[in-house]
Amino acid sequence: MSWTVYLSGEIHTDWRDQIIQGAKALQLPVQFTSPVTDHAASDAAGDLLGRERDDFWRDHKSSKINGIRTKTLIKRCDVAVIRFGDKYKQWNAAFDAGYCAAMAKPYITLHDENIVHALKEVDAAAMAWAKTPEQVVDVLKYVITA
Amino acid sequence: MSWTVYLSGEIHTDWRDQIIQGAKALQLPVQFTSPVTDHAASDAAGDLLGRERDDFWRDHKSSKINGIRTKTLIKRCDVAVIRFGDKYKQWNAAFDAGYCAAMAKPYITLHDENIVHALKEVDAAAMAWAKTPEQVVDVLKYVITA
Amino acid sequence: MSWTVYLSGEIHTDWRDQIIQGAKALQLPVQFTSPVTDHAASDAAGDLLGRERDDFWRDHKSSKINGIRTKTLIKRCDVAVIRFGDKYKQWNAAFDAGYCAAMAKPYITLHDENIVHALKEVDAAAMAWAKTPEQVVDVLKYVITA
Amino acid sequence: MSWTVYLSGEIHTDWRDQIIQGAKALQLPVQFTSPVTDHAASDAAGDLLGRERDDFWRDHKSSKINGIRTKTLIKRCDVAVIRFGDKYKQWNAAFDAGYCAAMAKPYITLHDENIVHALKEVDAAAMAWAKTPEQVVDVLKYVITA
Amino acid sequence: MSWTVYLSGEIHTDWRDQIIQGAKALQLPVQFTSPVTDHAASDAAGDLLGRERDDFWRDHKSSKINGIRTKTLIKRCDVAVIRFGDKYKQWNAAFDAGYCAAMAKPYITLHDENIVHALKEVDAAAMAWAKTPEQVVDVLKYVITA
Amino acid sequence: MSWTVYLSGEIHTDWRDQIIQGAKALQLPVQFTSPVTDHAASDAAGDLLGRERDDFWRDHKSSKINGIRTKTLIKRCDVAVIRFGDKYKQWNAAFDAGYCAAMAKPYITLHDENIVHALKEVDAAAMAWAKTPEQVVDVLKYVITA
Amino acid sequence: MSWTVYLSGEIHTDWRDQIIQGAKALQLPVQFTSPVTDHAASDAAGDLLGRERDDFWRDHKSSKINGIRTKTLIKRCDVAVIRFGDKYKQWNAAFDAGYCAAMAKPYITLHDENIVHALKEVDAAAMAWAKTPEQVVDVLKYVITA
Amino acid sequence: MSWTVYLSGEIHTDWRDQIIQGAKALQLPVQFTSPVTDHAASDAAGDLLGRERDDFWRDHKSSKINGIRTKTLIKRCDVAVIRFGDKYKQWNAAFDAGYCAAMAKPYITLHDENIVHALKEVDAAAMAWAKTPEQVVDVLKYVITA
Repeated sequence: MSWTVYLSGEIHTDWRDQIIQGAKALQLPVQFTSPVTDHAASDAAGDLLGRERDDFWRDHKSSKINGIRTKTLIKRCDVAVIRFGDKYKQWNAAFDAGYCAAMAKPYITLHDENIVHALKEVDAAAMAWAKTPEQVVDVLKYVITA
Repeated sequence: MSWTVYLSGEIHTDWRDQIIQGAKALQLPVQFTSPVTDHAASDAAGDLLGRERDDFWRDHKSSKINGIRTKTLIKRCDVAVIRFGDKYKQWNAAFDAGYCAAMAKPYITLHDENIVHALKEVDAAAMAWAKTPEQVVDVLKYVITA
Repeated sequence: MSWTVYLSGEIHTDWRDQIIQGAKALQLPVQFTSPVTDHAASDAAGDLLGRERDDFWRDHKSSKINGIRTKTLIKRCDVAVIRFGDKYKQWNAAFDAGYCAAMAKPYITLHDENIVHALKEVDAAAMAWAKTPEQVVDVLKYVITA
Repeated sequence: MSWTVYLSGEIHTDWRDQIIQGAKALQLPVQFTSPVTDHAASDAAGDLLGRERDDFWRDHKSSKINGIRTKTLIKRCDVAVIRFGDKYKQWNAAFDAGYCAAMAKPYITLHDENIVHALKEVDAAAMAWAKTPEQVVDVLKYVITA
Repeated sequence: MSWTVYLSGEIHTDWRDQIIQGAKALQLPVQFTSPVTDHAASDAAGDLLGRERDDFWRDHKSSKINGIRTKTLIKRCDVAVIRFGDKYKQWNAAFDAGYCAAMAKPYITLHDENIVHALKEVDAAAMAWAKTPEQVVDVLKYVITA
Repeated sequence: MSWTVYLSGEIHTDWRDQIIQGAKALQLPVQFTSPVTDHAASDAAGDLLGRERDDFWRDHKSSKINGIRTKTLIKRCDVAVIRFGDKYKQWNAAFDAGYCAAMAKPYITLHDENIVHALKEVDAAAMAWAKTPEQVVDVLKYVITA
Repeated sequence: MSWTVYLSGEIHTDWRDQIIQGAKALQLPVQFTSPVTDHAASDAAGDLLGRERDDFWRDHKSSKINGIRTKTLIKRCDVAVIRFGDKYKQWNAAFDAGYCAAMAKPYITLHDENIVHALKEVDAAAMAWAKTPEQVVDVLKYVITA
Repeated sequence: MSWTVYLSGEIHTDWRDQIIQGAKALQLPVQFTSPVTDHAASDAAGDLLGRERDDFWRDHKSSKINGIRTKTLIKRCDVAVIRFGDKYKQWNAAFDAGYCAAMAKPYITLHDENIVHALKEVDAAAMAWAKTPEQVVDVLKYVITA
């Protein structure tokens, strides 16, 4: 039985690759999906439909186009992994967590110990909190093949 | 027809009071609800069921108890107002936004212009973005009585 | 047992008043709700949150604010009446019909015979098609008190 | 990961072909679905079950049969594209938009600038507004492969 | 805590009155609702919107108008009682049972022993099978006040 | 795109075969499913888990086992065809219709003209009424391939 | 804002009274609901509809009648408290917990420390675990009035 | 048409193997899924993310990780078989039953006669009660191939 895992959140480190490679090495039957992780492309998504003069609306337009992808991939995944890094607000990651929670879609958070307190509501609705991509792979391996 | 409005997010300024007083001055038929806004009490909610040695689990326990309230009040509201301030991560606010979005519960964001880019996914799923509590009251007045 | 009836669609004639007066004359236990029917106010709803330079975004902003009201009132109604007049595109009325259909919310259409063919998909998902406000009152009276 | 895209609305120009050919040229993993686009056949669908004397019921019968197809294809699609042309009322297209909105099915509108105001409620619930079939293909390409 | 009980099915005997009187005698906090039970009025409901030449469409029109009421009352009830008599096909009663089953709305069937085999699928999804109105009252009394 | 069609109702004539053969002759991409149509086997389903002394409970047990199949196949179908014959009560067919209606699963009824009045509520929620298996095949052909 | 709290599970000690009295002393705006807690009456519920020869079916019949009450009260509550005592299997309590979990209905478990391991799946989906009725009252007070 | 069957509950006997082998011998088109049935591994699942000092939280962490698997497999199954053995509390099995019931997922219980009374609420919401793995295979064979 194949699983689909959505990798949400932080886009500045290679955590997605680590998880994907780790799962591949174990030959786990997992299909990974992700939001667009090219920051500039993601910000410019709305430009495909014409440039905006106003920054707010440019962001708005881009976010909605990105939302077609993220909304669909979350709906189709079995599990989400949601990564919070050290920098930036990453409200989109917390938004995805809330979205998953309301849809009863199980998710695993991936973040360092130092932001535990700030993430307490997000972690409280999660099924697991991992500190490293290796741990995520361990959990996926266990969940899928044990 | 009475409306129920949930006031989510930042707890360090008096924005809730401003909205509540503004609505009262206009005699809007609105019942406002909120999460527990006493920071210390909120962090200590879990202690009601016994102290924890581990910070992560203390947070976890507290967040789940707070979740009984927030989950119920979000389910029962007609509209949510979600406030993002200048400080802190406020991931719980973004989490609530995602939760509302998935439940098709309309929400209004309330935040300054300088965090527009970071909030673009949250704003993209919102029904409105207000910059001041007065604007929120204006929108509620319009929506409810126009 | 009290009923809530949402009156959607055309805003240039007094069909809402006729229905409301007709129901009042019969003392039907109905609470009527409506979108904002002041055309200029409705178009300007977004201005409450600041003027836009671009017409598309002004419309967008206004429509979303109006959506807080319409979405909530549709969710809370038992039945909707959706009126199509002779002029204008009235796509919002057809949009509301599709929205009701997907939510299994029963609706009655109100329109003249000459637009029957154009409205066939909308009428096909309706529970009834009325030609006059009096007929709507008759149906409500029957449905609620027979 | 394959996507299913439903092409709703106007049937008098070749916009569907343009999108399908554009996606094919890019080898996008998309399966396109559509309502019956042969106008006469669509109007006559009900005749398969016997002719009607009354135009209203002929339309009604045909629309319901067409509804088996459209309802099913909307339910099974990931994204819908909803096209509004210059002529006709096209209430069925707006109906589909409302239906998608209520089912949390993301949709893209495709229409000229001159009908922006009339479509404001439909666009407000859309994830994107495209002016040309090429733009739709660009968005699909971005959403699916970026 | 008040309960709402929908009384569906057979309209040729006074079983509804027996249940209503029985509940009143016990002062049970129950609000009873019913479809229109005047057979002629029910068949003629569609005539409120104009006479039809074709019997099928007259029935169709009437049934949909009656459906506004029955659909709404079933949605709003806590429990349904569905009565099958000795005569007629009573497919509407079985239809209501299926509708309740799919909506996870608990229902009690009320019918004689001699039609047990024919009703086996309907009874299999019911929460109880009563043979007399008195038994229905006994069950309601137990369920609500025990 | 493949369709799944559930064939519910009457089991004493060969209408299912006629539809299946008709669809096969046209090479329609349809997978047909059905309840158990062997009457004796269906009545005896519960005996697999031990004989019952009481007829009511034997029926009950058998119906629930049959319900595993019918509930699952209805959930998985795109469209249902529900056949009513001249004899028997066939309350299970009407039950399936109500179940489909509540789940927004489109269905086509198949029955003779002489039972139109008794089936008016069932037909009112149907997407089409066919009089012959050939007509059902015509509708499926149109809906799937037009 | 009034809350409804369902008290599920063990019926041999006075934990319900302790919670109800504790809430009353604090004047919490809570309406408490419960299953039938008279063991003999609960076992005999089915006898209202006639005695059964077979113990399994007597239990079955009684459980379904009790299910009308429990299903309805769970659906209508905001929060459930689910109590596990020292004796008996209490599978109904665990069943209610699973039912609440699937319906996204928040629940608090109430049990001693010595059965923590056996209840780990039930506690994992709970919002809180209390050891005493006083703790439950403390949590309700906090959640409702803090 | 392939079926997916989830095998929940007791992990100390070989009932799962018996069912799987029985189905294989009959070449039933069934894919069986199960929770992790290695007791020690299941208890230690949480250790993959770091050891806990506190037994409650170790259990909690492990149960949530196991929940990723069980929640997903229940969501994806057509039918569940839920086994109760002679020993242990097995509250997780009853929890799964309640979870299935609320999701309208049909399930079959598998247990001896001596625990019938204690399981009455669980059996009341089940579609069948089997006493042996052979009977489960018989029911699956009937349901899938009759």
